[in-house]
Amino acid sequence: MRTLLLTPGPLTTSLRTRAALSRDWGSRDGAFLALSNTLRARLAALAGVAGTHAAIPLQGSGTFAVEAALQTLVPRDGRLLVLINGAYGHRIATIAGRLGLDMCAIETAENQAISPEAVQTTLAEDAAITDVALVHCETSSGLVNPLEDIAAIVRAAGKRLLVDAMSAFGAIPIDGRKIPFTALMGSANKGLESVPGLSFVIAQTSHLASCEGTSRSLSLDLYDQWRGFEATGEWRFTPPVQVVAALNAALDQLEEEGGVAARNARYRANADMLLAGMRAQGFLPFLDPALQGPVIATFRLPAKTRAQPKGWFVFETFYDFLHARNIVIYPGKLTSEPSFRIGCIGDIRAEDIGRVLDAVETFVRLHRPDQLA
Amino acid sequence: MRTLLLTPGPLTTSLRTRAALSRDWGSRDGAFLALSNTLRARLAALAGVAGTHAAIPLQGSGTFAVEAALQTLVPRDGRLLVLINGAYGHRIATIAGRLGLDMCAIETAENQAISPEAVQTTLAEDAAITDVALVHCETSSGLVNPLEDIAAIVRAAGKRLLVDAMSAFGAIPIDGRKIPFTALMGSANKGLESVPGLSFVIAQTSHLASCEGTSRSLSLDLYDQWRGFEATGEWRFTPPVQVVAALNAALDQLEEEGGVAARNARYRANADMLLAGMRAQGFLPFLDPALQGPVIATFRLPAKTRAQPKGWFVFETFYDFLHARNIVIYPGKLTSEPSFRIGCIGDIRAEDIGRVLDAVETFVRLHRPDQLA
Repeated sequence: MRTLLLTPGPLTTSLRTRAALSRDWGSRDGAFLALSNTLRARLAALAGVAGTHAAIPLQGSGTFAVEAALQTLVPRDGRLLVLINGAYGHRIATIAGRLGLDMCAIETAENQAISPEAVQTTLAEDAAITDVALVHCETSSGLVNPLEDIAAIVRAAGKRLLVDAMSAFGAIPIDGRKIPFTALMGSANKGLESVPGLSFVIAQTSHLASCEGTSRSLSLDLYDQWRGFEATGEWRFTPPVQVVAALNAALDQLEEEGGVAARNARYRANADMLLAGMRAQGFLPFLDPALQGPVIATFRLPAKTRAQPKGWFVFETFYDFLHARNIVIYPGKLTSEPSFRIGCIGDIRAEDIGRVLDAVETFVRLHRPDQLA
Repeated sequence: MRTLLLTPGPLTTSLRTRAALSRDWGSRDGAFLALSNTLRARLAALAGVAGTHAAIPLQGSGTFAVEAALQTLVPRDGRLLVLINGAYGHRIATIAGRLGLDMCAIETAENQAISPEAVQTTLAEDAAITDVALVHCETSSGLVNPLEDIAAIVRAAGKRLLVDAMSAFGAIPIDGRKIPFTALMGSANKGLESVPGLSFVIAQTSHLASCEGTSRSLSLDLYDQWRGFEATGEWRFTPPVQVVAALNAALDQLEEEGGVAARNARYRANADMLLAGMRAQGFLPFLDPALQGPVIATFRLPAKTRAQPKGWFVFETFYDFLHARNIVIYPGKLTSEPSFRIGCIGDIRAEDIGRVLDAVETFVRLHRPDQLA
């Protein structure tokens, strides 16, 4: 029975994607350079910005791409507004703090979207702000922020927008012609359904061209990485060649599925089925339906009862029960309350969600007091 | 016919190593945490420092590990002595410059080893130096620096030694009990014969423990990465799970081969056979035999003649000729003269070197003027 990783990356990949890992590539050989070049073009096209932006793949996880964007694209005398409603917004602030960037933040609760009006007010009041950073889909809750509205406000104010689209890219359509952004940070192993080891930044070349020497890190210098690709087609430093090949194979499958719109529909169906099925078993979602994206669902822990003051539901027991059935879920990452998460992305379809719900139903039947005869 | 990557990483890996890429892993699941834990223990043991040092795997290429070591382990008020005799020594200086570290250098020619006496003199004259960085095997030439002598001098002077052992680790025995080092930076895809996407630093815990908050980079903070592993067994940020599994499989094969000593003997035999065979075809090695390591050989371009002032040997033609026979070699990386390189590491044995030499002989027969009837 196939293992289901209902975790938001690494996630369940297809056999075909993993089969693409099976060969060696010379990293400076023509065949691999062609592969990298194709990858870069496909990523920029996916974001609708082939003419204005450059896709810059980077070794490492998504956090490396977020840091590379902050290292390279925010001028040292700039001021960054970080929009925070979860762990990944906080991470942006942590990175910016390390870099010594001048910074301010708008923080809202983990179950509330960032308010476009608040962004507008802050930008109007604090003219020194040069850059705004937003997490599109907060993987810590599953909440999707109103990117389109915020992007319009940031653009109207003449500021740059950096979008952490880690779990959203590939899962939720983002067209840079309609949603203006200076940079979008993404990863191979979320909505694109490939294996981890590679992240990327899709950056506006008109701004990028002015960023030489800004990054204090050599490894994470997006400008240098971009110039390297443009000059020779080569990665500056050894690329994860198999991981690059797998991502190209995964992009083939994204195209064949019908692109991001079709994938979004599949994920949305997964999420709807999961949320309805979990609710039927008594598990309440953390988010209001209007804020719930198709990427991952967060559930509150079941209420404690007088009969069982510790509660009948122990996450570790639940995790192990599912794990024994080759289903891997995620612990919660909220600061406001205990929770757990189940991902809806990856090579996952209705029959897989059905398998999960069957297992959950069995667990509830075996553990919940009112179910015990 | 099997493709031979005679390039110093990515290199030719075994089928068994690549087969280990074929499954998905939950990055916070127990099975993967056990795998990471095993990997960390094996890397420290390979360097002979299981009791005193911690192996800290890091996402990204070897340069990421070198930068992470400089970011984290060299105090902001320290002074770094960089020992340079090739491109990778220069890269250390470039990274340190970006970080704004106070720095000095000893630079020698690309065909000369770093002089232990010069290091001793510099350390005696410049008491402010706190840290010394050395490239063990300069992959740009194939030269092996006298690590043991330099390590003894650095230790006697009471300074810290950071060893860039990228292409040496796994290929040349390094026992930290005899060769004292504060940190050793290595990569999965060189002498350990795995796929690229993962690097590591093996760092002395007594020093590492004092390095909290030194790194200005979050992604490359070795202290945080170490504390993360120690606290939860988890990677702080999404690990390249398949690449981790492949490295563990590659370490199984290293053990079965008889460890680093046996692998060193195989590489040395590869290099000796290659150098002798190339010399028989008129290709002169760049390095003096005493400095030539077993990792990679650099060859001078054949001399030009009056009849062919541009020379009969065109690297691109040679590269393509070998490439058509599924053999991939490397261009030169010397600044002092044009050259090319052929790697001796990876899943490569005498029969493979024989195949290369046969192809070279055919090329020479077809192209060298004195060979043309």
